[in-house]
Amino acid sequence: MNTCQPWDPQCYDRKLALRLESVRALFILHPPYPDPYAPSDFDLTDNSIARLPIVPVLDPVRTARPSPSATGGTTVINAKFYGRNDRLGAAPWSTNFAAASSLRHIRQLGIDVSSGSRIASGRRTSIDRKKQRSGERGVCALFGMESGRPKDVGILAIDIYFPPSCVQQEALEAHDGASKGKYTIGLGQDCMAFCTEVEDVISMSLTVVTSLLKKYQIDPKQIGRLEVGSETVIDKSKSIKTWIMQIFEVHLFGKLVEYGNTDVEGVDSTNACYGGTAALFNCVNWVESSSWDGRYGLVVCTDSAVYAEGPARPTGGAAAIAMLIGPNAPFAFESKYRGTHMSHVYDFYKPNLASEYPVVDGKLSQTCYLMALDACYNLYCSKFEKFEGKQFSISDSDYFVFHSPYNKLVQKSFARLYFNDFLRNTSAVEKDAKEKLEPFSNLIGDESYQSRDLEKVSQQVAKTLYDAKVQPSTLLPKQLGNMYTASLYAAFASVIHNKHKTLVGQRIVMFSYGSGLTSTMFSFKLQEGQHPFSLPNIASILNVSEKLERRHVVPPEKFVETLKLMEHRYGAKDFETSRDTSLLTPGTFYLMKVDSMYRRHYARKDA
Amino acid sequence: MNTCQPWDPQCYDRKLALRLESVRALFILHPPYPDPYAPSDFDLTDNSIARLPIVPVLDPVRTARPSPSATGGTTVINAKFYGRNDRLGAAPWSTNFAAASSLRHIRQLGIDVSSGSRIASGRRTSIDRKKQRSGERGVCALFGMESGRPKDVGILAIDIYFPPSCVQQEALEAHDGASKGKYTIGLGQDCMAFCTEVEDVISMSLTVVTSLLKKYQIDPKQIGRLEVGSETVIDKSKSIKTWIMQIFEVHLFGKLVEYGNTDVEGVDSTNACYGGTAALFNCVNWVESSSWDGRYGLVVCTDSAVYAEGPARPTGGAAAIAMLIGPNAPFAFESKYRGTHMSHVYDFYKPNLASEYPVVDGKLSQTCYLMALDACYNLYCSKFEKFEGKQFSISDSDYFVFHSPYNKLVQKSFARLYFNDFLRNTSAVEKDAKEKLEPFSNLIGDESYQSRDLEKVSQQVAKTLYDAKVQPSTLLPKQLGNMYTASLYAAFASVIHNKHKTLVGQRIVMFSYGSGLTSTMFSFKLQEGQHPFSLPNIASILNVSEKLERRHVVPPEKFVETLKLMEHRYGAKDFETSRDTSLLTPGTFYLMKVDSMYRRHYARKDA
Repeated sequence: MNTCQPWDPQCYDRKLALRLESVRALFILHPPYPDPYAPSDFDLTDNSIARLPIVPVLDPVRTARPSPSATGGTTVINAKFYGRNDRLGAAPWSTNFAAASSLRHIRQLGIDVSSGSRIASGRRTSIDRKKQRSGERGVCALFGMESGRPKDVGILAIDIYFPPSCVQQEALEAHDGASKGKYTIGLGQDCMAFCTEVEDVISMSLTVVTSLLKKYQIDPKQIGRLEVGSETVIDKSKSIKTWIMQIFEVHLFGKLVEYGNTDVEGVDSTNACYGGTAALFNCVNWVESSSWDGRYGLVVCTDSAVYAEGPARPTGGAAAIAMLIGPNAPFAFESKYRGTHMSHVYDFYKPNLASEYPVVDGKLSQTCYLMALDACYNLYCSKFEKFEGKQFSISDSDYFVFHSPYNKLVQKSFARLYFNDFLRNTSAVEKDAKEKLEPFSNLIGDESYQSRDLEKVSQQVAKTLYDAKVQPSTLLPKQLGNMYTASLYAAFASVIHNKHKTLVGQRIVMFSYGSGLTSTMFSFKLQEGQHPFSLPNIASILNVSEKLERRHVVPPEKFVETLKLMEHRYGAKDFETSRDTSLLTPGTFYLMKVDSMYRRHYARKDA
Repeated sequence: MNTCQPWDPQCYDRKLALRLESVRALFILHPPYPDPYAPSDFDLTDNSIARLPIVPVLDPVRTARPSPSATGGTTVINAKFYGRNDRLGAAPWSTNFAAASSLRHIRQLGIDVSSGSRIASGRRTSIDRKKQRSGERGVCALFGMESGRPKDVGILAIDIYFPPSCVQQEALEAHDGASKGKYTIGLGQDCMAFCTEVEDVISMSLTVVTSLLKKYQIDPKQIGRLEVGSETVIDKSKSIKTWIMQIFEVHLFGKLVEYGNTDVEGVDSTNACYGGTAALFNCVNWVESSSWDGRYGLVVCTDSAVYAEGPARPTGGAAAIAMLIGPNAPFAFESKYRGTHMSHVYDFYKPNLASEYPVVDGKLSQTCYLMALDACYNLYCSKFEKFEGKQFSISDSDYFVFHSPYNKLVQKSFARLYFNDFLRNTSAVEKDAKEKLEPFSNLIGDESYQSRDLEKVSQQVAKTLYDAKVQPSTLLPKQLGNMYTASLYAAFASVIHNKHKTLVGQRIVMFSYGSGLTSTMFSFKLQEGQHPFSLPNIASILNVSEKLERRHVVPPEKFVETLKLMEHRYGAKDFETSRDTSLLTPGTFYLMKVDSMYRRHYARKDA
């Protein structure tokens, strides 16, 4: 029943539906002359439209009715566009209207219809057939221009939750009998968040996901994929993602709906602190794939990092981060510039299944981290050069965000990039610094990772750049500690918190590391973002300062006591928690009990 | 330095490189007249070409030099194409050559250059500039036609490994004192594979990946992503993927290369038996994403399913499967027809971290499985109908492949689809069957899952279709048992084994289920595949019959004894295995010891 435009001779009914599968938005124009079929004549639930895979969020057609503009001319129904290269138009169509005319109207709306897009066209078929046959004009047509992949896919929104309890590193130093400054200067840490017995990675995930959905007013039905990154194992088979599905199965905001949204792809991604990055890549790739159905992706990074008594204990932390993924994002992936390095090592791992604590070789892990950083940076640079035709150096990115087990390693890491830039002879390294680094230029292999002098000198010459490009990312990791999968994205959130006013047009380079090992360097190009996904709104919703201030500082004794209790609780069944929610903000989920079948029961503090 | 074609006015040097990012193959034509620049004049390592992201497997430019054809005319350098819609050409270019001429030559090669592809063009810049300026002709130009996503992405190749030890269900029945037929007819199982102390999910993965790479002659450098699906946890932080990286870090086939391929994305995906499907989706989406670099994806499903003594014990099994992912695949995803159902339930889970055994509620799990099947099937059907404009029924697919915990559930599942087709009033259900099913049409909710009569009648009326569309997938799951993540793909491999001669043009519908729960129904459209990825070659490499025959049947006592030993070994350190490799085929990896730091040491039986 569809009629084809001259430039698309193969168009026919069934094909139309197939072609339109990549349509990202719909709008309808009315002929710029009195229309015998007033808007109310259009049955917008008509099959030929309903068949289009237009998802709720983008579905002006199903939810709105066209209202002609005051001039009686062109009307656009609440159209949304994904990226400047995704074009989709609807134009007046009738036997009296030539293709050129339609295109002209689309162009008048400022839509780029340059070559490169196929045009799938079809006539709406719900119009009274009799009138149509009688030759009357004014039938509305839909034009879908295929656009291939959606553009500027990345992070649309982000929220963070961390437990209200924390211990100060200075107090912990004293309590542990460590030398003064060992944790605060040696590790570079200020404070450490931790879960008490009423919270865990599942409750934190439930809290942060409901918070993000509520604050950005996202209906759970608009989520088509949910991926979790975590290395905190509560169950070896059942994914954390399935616990989060509770939010989607019943509508949270007031009403209980028997059948909610269970059509949500994705499971848990696992490899130490890298799982969140893997989950993020998976979500972004889904949006760019042919199986994308137009809905949002959601990534959750959730971890509780605890260590046995000893030197690693102050490097714990806890948090959960949720990120909304889609096209036209303020934080758009530069997907071609990516350096990955993966290898088999035993630097940090969790082979003792009965214990929550890892086995750690701190020194080896630091060397592995820096070697992986070198490998990723060099690959990132070579890919950048391949596509941009010019050398990459530190000066090409405004911010560098590192996975942060402890701040001192972040300082070393940036100095290491600076040293790489020196070895690569980039213009980012000044003459003065070159002279200072020259003595280290011949260090081979492991020597350069073990040289204290190189570490010291490179940190010194990189100091100014560190303050400008790295320091803005360090707030949350220093205040909360190592949040494993959430650590890199908490650092990222810190940049948003500190610099959201000046980020547009800038670049952020990210380095993700997970022991074992897996690592990737990648980058975002920053755009303004459209409300509610604008940078100022994201920063305001993150609300970092208030969340930090709201925290409750507990003495080290209480922290140690909590960890002792949790050692018994890990993997246990048949117990109830204190249900003490006094420190939790309203709306926070908490653990009530684990029953005799190991089933976990959560509740939510009244919002 | 690049000159642009008239139809691409915005082309310029830096843009060219960016545009060509989606190029899938390169070829070079020489002008069809005597060329003053003989092929040897072309510096094919020239920067403007080398900058193109042509990956080794597709890189004729870097590895071959053009040789003019006998006629002195058109020469194509060993070009490979991904799918019929991915077009990239190179054409003679000089100021004397019009665009039309170039296009004509491309068309002569049978390449579709219809509208819809942008053309990025550029003049090779390595040609002697002086000659160029003097007006001589014959400069070779490169044309890249952007193609968006690669087409027909799916499974290119598959290999399976399972342990050589197995126990017969009939013998196990007798040993366990179960009623005769309880395992063989009640569960529908024939035999069960299991790992002895020298094998585990890591060794099986190493074995199957090296086997696939070797048999298909894939250089490890050609792998750009490696994803593992597993629910057998050996380490809670370090992914199985990092162990497999050993194969990529050093070149396996004879030579040891210090720096191998460590640029391999992907980690482990976790949710019960669904992890392999999640890994598969992730790999496919990567190939379709903008971050794809042209290399293959590799998916590994590896599990060892063991149960505590009791009714679930005979539902164990073990295997590892490797699948190569890329475009133009014989098993191409129908990515738009996909039904997913995810929910929070405790039907089967592993909360006892110290034990390898799960907690199982068998009855609940079966009901969850069938409910998920209903939900996925209905969603699959509605998506199919949305895009195809007609109702889907069982008759629209040639094979149905189910996740197979035990065969009896597969029988019930297909009958359930048949019952769904009856409720949906499809033409697949014959009059006779309709009458028999009519009494059950009003069963509501749980009733229909619990009705023994419905189960019996629906299996009976679906029997003929079951034999045709399901039975060919049951061989390996009945012989090996439940392989968790590998189970669905072992069933899939059984279809290839049994039906590879007649599969071209057919459809396979797959149902993946993981307790907890996660489930998806999806489908493949089958194509012939190009060597070595042709259906007969894949079937020959799978070599199912010989692998099954080669197995060693052990008495139940020996099986129980092995499981007892493994109970102590699970999560343990500081032990050596027997290193008994007598049953292993050459080339199989095996576990030698776990040292005092829990580090696992593997070796390979001489090939």
